[in-house]
Amino acid sequence: RRGEMAKSTQLIDNEVFRAYATHAAIVLLKMMLMSLITAYFRITRKAFVNPEDTASFGKGESAKKFLRTDPDVERVRRGHLNDLENIVPFVGIGLLYALSGPELSTALLHFRIFTGARILHTFAYLIPLPQPGRGLSWAVGYSVTFSMAYKVLKTAWLL
Amino acid sequence: RRGEMAKSTQLIDNEVFRAYATHAAIVLLKMMLMSLITAYFRITRKAFVNPEDTASFGKGESAKKFLRTDPDVERVRRGHLNDLENIVPFVGIGLLYALSGPELSTALLHFRIFTGARILHTFAYLIPLPQPGRGLSWAVGYSVTFSMAYKVLKTAWLL
Amino acid sequence: RRGEMAKSTQLIDNEVFRAYATHAAIVLLKMMLMSLITAYFRITRKAFVNPEDTASFGKGESAKKFLRTDPDVERVRRGHLNDLENIVPFVGIGLLYALSGPELSTALLHFRIFTGARILHTFAYLIPLPQPGRGLSWAVGYSVTFSMAYKVLKTAWLL
Repeated sequence: RRGEMAKSTQLIDNEVFRAYATHAAIVLLKMMLMSLITAYFRITRKAFVNPEDTASFGKGESAKKFLRTDPDVERVRRGHLNDLENIVPFVGIGLLYALSGPELSTALLHFRIFTGARILHTFAYLIPLPQPGRGLSWAVGYSVTFSMAYKVLKTAWLL
Repeated sequence: RRGEMAKSTQLIDNEVFRAYATHAAIVLLKMMLMSLITAYFRITRKAFVNPEDTASFGKGESAKKFLRTDPDVERVRRGHLNDLENIVPFVGIGLLYALSGPELSTALLHFRIFTGARILHTFAYLIPLPQPGRGLSWAVGYSVTFSMAYKVLKTAWLL
Repeated sequence: RRGEMAKSTQLIDNEVFRAYATHAAIVLLKMMLMSLITAYFRITRKAFVNPEDTASFGKGESAKKFLRTDPDVERVRRGHLNDLENIVPFVGIGLLYALSGPELSTALLHFRIFTGARILHTFAYLIPLPQPGRGLSWAVGYSVTFSMAYKVLKTAWLL
């Protein structure tokens, strides 16, 4: 029992892996939060896309007028898609990076900058902040993922 | 040879990890199925988005009329995007959860509820079922991923 | 110190896992490249979606005319979304496959075909090549992921 437990948790006992798990969970939760913000704006702006979602507003024309796009809803959806395009590569490449034996301090530097940049990116997108706020926060996160990918390819290369 | 094999398969020998691998593969295959359903509706509804996809229907105006959106195609695409937004976090957080040493019974409960909820969500979206069918199945899957993320952060926390 | 290092890098010492890490990093970087191509076309075609992105072009109506869709931008974005729909399942299922103890030669065959197919798919989408170029390259990548999922489910099955 004890031995089995130890085996199953050995990765999570590694400090670099723990740091990865913490940051990966945080940015994935942040990405999931976009669904709730989208739902909030859809309901408060009364802007839906599926006819069955407007059934509670009545039948026929009275409900149909809520099948529309809203600028705030679309903005959150673009932020959500941008998260998918950037957080998903971070989670995939970050896992390989955490298993490639980096120094804990170097790994933490990568993870912290990425998490911070993506949280800033979300605020920059939703407020919105004037450019280049959003552009820069995107570029910082992108560069961190690129740096980790370089370490992974240098360590693991077997094509 | 034997030792190497054992080393490479030790994660897959762990029961929690096997359960994770089974459910992750099932929900990812389910997500991939959305591509086939989209292709099916695009072909049967003759509703395409790329000009080169309609070349077999003739040249010029006769082909151009098939470059259009179709409600059924758009509905499947929304279901596909919703899968990306929800199944991808499950796969990422679920992996970390499986490595955080949960009880097999607790892990199975999480995985089974998520897989069931996402299959229900797909039926609710495609049929479509009246609300709150789709909303509830979405919320159940979302809550399961959230619960796993809580366990991961509690076990691994190293910010 | 040495022992800890060895433990943390044992997965990356496995040849199948190294091959997986190499190919997963390559296709994720390829997917990330789509962001840069989108940005390139948005800037050269002057076709933006966020009002704050056009502020440097002046105020009012003179900037508003750059808030528009452009066929080249939309084409790259569709290619990017297709990558998310196909490369993400490959990365998830490929990890489980790499841990399921396949022969190195079989694993390399899967990974190489997938990576090649997705690079071809990108060229087929962006040039664009006449069909069935894009369709076939998509189907090849899809089939590879399906084949790996079959091996995962056969090895790990615990529902």
